Amino acid sequence: MLAGVTTEPAYTLYYWPNIQGRGEFVRLTLEEAGAPYVDIARLDEAEGGGVASIFALLEARGASVAPFAPPILKHGDLVLAQTANVCAYLGERHGLVGDTDPARRHALQLQLTIADLAAEVHDTHHPVGSGLYYEEQKVEARRRTGMFLKERLPKYLGYFERQVELGGGPWLMGSTRTYVDLSLFQVLEGLAYAFPRGAAAVTASTPRLVALRDRVAALPKVSAYLASPRRIPFNEHGLFRRYPELDLSE
Amino acid sequence: MLAGVTTEPAYTLYYWPNIQGRGEFVRLTLEEAGAPYVDIARLDEAEGGGVASIFALLEARGASVAPFAPPILKHGDLVLAQTANVCAYLGERHGLVGDTDPARRHALQLQLTIADLAAEVHDTHHPVGSGLYYEEQKVEARRRTGMFLKERLPKYLGYFERQVELGGGPWLMGSTRTYVDLSLFQVLEGLAYAFPRGAAAVTASTPRLVALRDRVAALPKVSAYLASPRRIPFNEHGLFRRYPELDLSE
Repeated sequence: MLAGVTTEPAYTLYYWPNIQGRGEFVRLTLEEAGAPYVDIARLDEAEGGGVASIFALLEARGASVAPFAPPILKHGDLVLAQTANVCAYLGERHGLVGDTDPARRHALQLQLTIADLAAEVHDTHHPVGSGLYYEEQKVEARRRTGMFLKERLPKYLGYFERQVELGGGPWLMGSTRTYVDLSLFQVLEGLAYAFPRGAAAVTASTPRLVALRDRVAALPKVSAYLASPRRIPFNEHGLFRRYPELDLSE
Repeated sequence: MLAGVTTEPAYTLYYWPNIQGRGEFVRLTLEEAGAPYVDIARLDEAEGGGVASIFALLEARGASVAPFAPPILKHGDLVLAQTANVCAYLGERHGLVGDTDPARRHALQLQLTIADLAAEVHDTHHPVGSGLYYEEQKVEARRRTGMFLKERLPKYLGYFERQVELGGGPWLMGSTRTYVDLSLFQVLEGLAYAFPRGAAAVTASTPRLVALRDRVAALPKVSAYLASPRRIPFNEHGLFRRYPELDLSE
């Protein structure tokens, strides 16, 4: 793969500059890979950054396959989108997944299940549509979040807990950490931020996931990243939003 | 990939026997591949079929990576889940995508964008939760479907229309059909079934997609499949459901 490339071009990430969002799955992968990258929209517009850089890429007509939405990774001539697809690309290039075909396909399978969970989290605060403000769909959001915390979240986290057990642990795919572990960490962190009570009620039954989350946080590169200004704090514009009225009540 | 395999095991698809659902993306790929496969849950329980076969696979503890949900493909020792992941696996094995690394990653990118669209279609009739009946969330469904038909569907189909143009056509990735075209066909068919008026209002502006849909339907193997009893009709238990009250009014 890219075997003929001798001078390695740097990675450029195109993602919204003020949120973690789906871009955070890519950022965590780049950080654990130790790969130099430019988070371009966080640069000033005068330096070619800002959200203008994202819109320019989305509107460019040069690529044979265009991205639908950020996050988008540019690497040399390759412009790649869809979060799981980008994480898999980086993971495969940087030793963050086994190098057999089944290992790679199974990692993507797990990553796509995490993406499904993340999409369901998004819809807790946007059940009617992403084109409306949360305040315009609060009634529906309460109903959907209730169902999510009661049925969907236990199902997803129970599945991942069992997966750590099946694979022999302590990581999702056995004894070596993969890019999928980084993404699961991000979801667990985000859930704890968004639903302090609702998430805790579920993770009380998933000790392996709690241990995995702590293990990811302690990886030296991840730990350094989390302590750096590159890590944007959670906020109410991203995927994981803390609206106390949606969480379980005391 | 699997280069050492000389005797090719058959494919077994595990998916709900009475709906097209997400399994249909896999069925179309298997059919166009001309690959022998068993749609196991459509066999009688006495033959090892029925939905019991799906639950048995989901509960099996032999695999190192377990599936979360159907569709699931079994191929020799490999048990693979997540629709886009399964379609990519089959597409890559059967010449339904280019054989370069960028072509495969771009195909997956497009397939994942189709999966995102399919998930949004699902949520038009299940905006609150998949654990409730449609009848328990009709009010929310009307509101969500309104937003979907007005904003999201034009955005998605406009993107795919532009992609056919960018790639040079007549297929999504240029002059050769890929597994992604089969999936886009399925979504276009499903939308026309679910929202006869709402979908037509959008596809009036996407002539390349209409032509692509017809071109897929005319592929000899797809055409034979669509005319066979293997093609389950659309119904109100699947992904695409016709609830006239959700469609655009006259």
